[in-house]
Amino acid sequence: MCEAVVFLNRGGELERIMDDVVELKPEGDKLLLVDVFGEQKLVSARISEVELMDHRVVLSETGEG
Amino acid sequence: MCEAVVFLNRGGELERIMDDVVELKPEGDKLLLVDVFGEQKLVSARISEVELMDHRVVLSETGEG
Repeated sequence: MCEAVVFLNRGGELERIMDDVVELKPEGDKLLLVDVFGEQKLVSARISEVELMDHRVVLSETGEG
Repeated sequence: MCEAVVFLNRGGELERIMDDVVELKPEGDKLLLVDVFGEQKLVSARISEVELMDHRVVLSETGEG
C-alpha cells in the first residue's frame, strides 16, 4: 500500500503529525487527514510537498493552527 | 511503487495532466511535478487533494496558469 507519513512544517521545523495516511482533502479552510484505519485528523494547513517514493507528505501551516 | 496520476481542477473540470508522478514540490510560486522517468512539469497550481489508495492527486489552479 501507499500510505504516507505526514509532517507539518512549523517555521522550518518538521513535526511528524500522522502516520499511515492514505487521504488528504480540503474540509472548509482546513485539511482533513485520514489514515488506513479510518482515523481522522483536521489541521489548519495545506499540502506543500508530496514525495511518493519516500512515503512522505509535508504540510505548511495556515491560520492559527 | 506509489506513483500517482495528477489532475488539475479547472473550475470543476478535472484535467489529467501527468501520469506516474512520484514527487510534487514547490518551486517559487509554482509547483514542480516529477514522474518516475525523471520528466518534469512546472505548473501554476497547488496541491489540493491526495488520494493514495486511488493513486490520485488533484491540483487547483493559481495565478494565470
